[in-house]
Amino acid sequence: VGAARLLRGLADVVDHRDLTVIVNTGDDDEFYGLQISPDIDTILYTLAGLAPRSRGWGIRGDSYRVLGALQRFYGKGWFALGDEDLATHVFRTHALRDGKSLSACTRAIADALGVRARVLPATDDRVRTVIDTPRGVLAFQDYLVRRRGRPRVLGVRYQGARRARPAPGVLAAIERADAVIVAPSNPFVSVGPILAVPGVRAALRRARKRAVAVSPLIGGRAVKGPLVSMLRSLGMPASSAVFTRLYRGLVAALIVAPGDAAAAGRGRGDPRVLEHDILLSSPAPARRLARFALATALDGAL
Amino acid sequence: VGAARLLRGLADVVDHRDLTVIVNTGDDDEFYGLQISPDIDTILYTLAGLAPRSRGWGIRGDSYRVLGALQRFYGKGWFALGDEDLATHVFRTHALRDGKSLSACTRAIADALGVRARVLPATDDRVRTVIDTPRGVLAFQDYLVRRRGRPRVLGVRYQGARRARPAPGVLAAIERADAVIVAPSNPFVSVGPILAVPGVRAALRRARKRAVAVSPLIGGRAVKGPLVSMLRSLGMPASSAVFTRLYRGLVAALIVAPGDAAAAGRGRGDPRVLEHDILLSSPAPARRLARFALATALDGAL
Repeated sequence: VGAARLLRGLADVVDHRDLTVIVNTGDDDEFYGLQISPDIDTILYTLAGLAPRSRGWGIRGDSYRVLGALQRFYGKGWFALGDEDLATHVFRTHALRDGKSLSACTRAIADALGVRARVLPATDDRVRTVIDTPRGVLAFQDYLVRRRGRPRVLGVRYQGARRARPAPGVLAAIERADAVIVAPSNPFVSVGPILAVPGVRAALRRARKRAVAVSPLIGGRAVKGPLVSMLRSLGMPASSAVFTRLYRGLVAALIVAPGDAAAAGRGRGDPRVLEHDILLSSPAPARRLARFALATALDGAL
Repeated sequence: VGAARLLRGLADVVDHRDLTVIVNTGDDDEFYGLQISPDIDTILYTLAGLAPRSRGWGIRGDSYRVLGALQRFYGKGWFALGDEDLATHVFRTHALRDGKSLSACTRAIADALGVRARVLPATDDRVRTVIDTPRGVLAFQDYLVRRRGRPRVLGVRYQGARRARPAPGVLAAIERADAVIVAPSNPFVSVGPILAVPGVRAALRRARKRAVAVSPLIGGRAVKGPLVSMLRSLGMPASSAVFTRLYRGLVAALIVAPGDAAAAGRGRGDPRVLEHDILLSSPAPARRLARFALATALDGAL
């Protein structure tokens, strides 16, 4: 949600053709035999103007007729798929089975939806975020959607990441970008699977002088999602201090909410901490944050 | 359409659990990466009470939201798939990819839809009806739906039939049935692919004393479909005479429309020709024909 909102702001202030979005694929899963890439679709629908205002998934005003009929065969499910949204999954599944890469599928979907920004999956290889819990290992959607992010998190792993290669264009996009913005997303399950793809962390490290991250916490709370309980489970404080540590050496600056800079602390080599309104409840603050993050990254003086 | 209407009549006069329907799979095809079995679905939807009144495919009152969204990716298509109908294809595709047989998928769909009759695909192996035309070989749906059955038919072939095996239960169902009814369907593209599966023709031959066929022609015209132009293309008369020849040795009686018995002619070994109202425009004549066909087949004196 945070990433999509900031992206909407960026899309308002930057020519779409100058935007490259590198997207987490660790959430990808299969439902009803269909290949679902929730984060890629959220980004594509956001850029295509199809995303709902508040909800972080699917297509605005979609219906759920197929899902209702699927229940005849599968029983009541816990993963909602709208009818228009389903067409994307049918197409992706078909194209992947035909041997196309996830990058190529994503490009084809972007083209069909009129998205002009470049949307790149972090990798074309299979990487799956799994959550270690006291009740065993859970696939990410199982943890987040089915169990509403409630189980205690003992650890987060990215299955397949070690052998994954960055998708074509990913490393070059990071290294050649005028500005890199790490979205206000969950560092473990949204940013983490991207950084876990060999080569990506090093590319970001090389681009760090032009890179800023936006904290997903405001006064120790997340706008949405299980980040706070996840931090707690992992024995970390729900404070911006976590991010100065997690993004150390990867970004030059961390943008936090007003009043949160003190909590962020700053060790040697930590990113500079800047305060700005990061509550993106409407397009105007999203545009302002986008401009501020861009200006900070482009500053160079960092 | 004819088969579905007669089946509706049969389902009204026979306990569903006593009905076995052996269904053509030569029309099966893949659209949007989904496995479509048009005849199986028409039979299942008919027995489940989900079929439309007049149209011979899909689910009554279905919507087409996914199809509209698929056009973004595939352009305007020529094969309509409703939203609820699509759930069936998603399930079948998923189950087949998981290694289930078409029989097993069909049974699962029948169970989910509350169908108690036994619906058997003629074969679990891949048989595809192709139409030889002056413009080349056409897949059946391409010929029937996309080109509306207009191309001249030089021949009909059942690809894969020679190596296909009857699906479990097919031969036994024919041989052990109290009565076998060959539906008023196109003999080349609906009945033909079933008889082309090795073993089925011989089974029917053995059951012929308890078997009747219903002509799909009324006064030289078909209620629906390209049968008449197909007969003409193949140099055959559009008359019941064709059926006494095609079903010779396979059924004991052929039921034709009032006034069509004379045209049917009767060579040595040809089935007996009986007249009855076979225009199934509403449930009542369908029930009457069902009773008559059953009585004729059960007669034994044939």
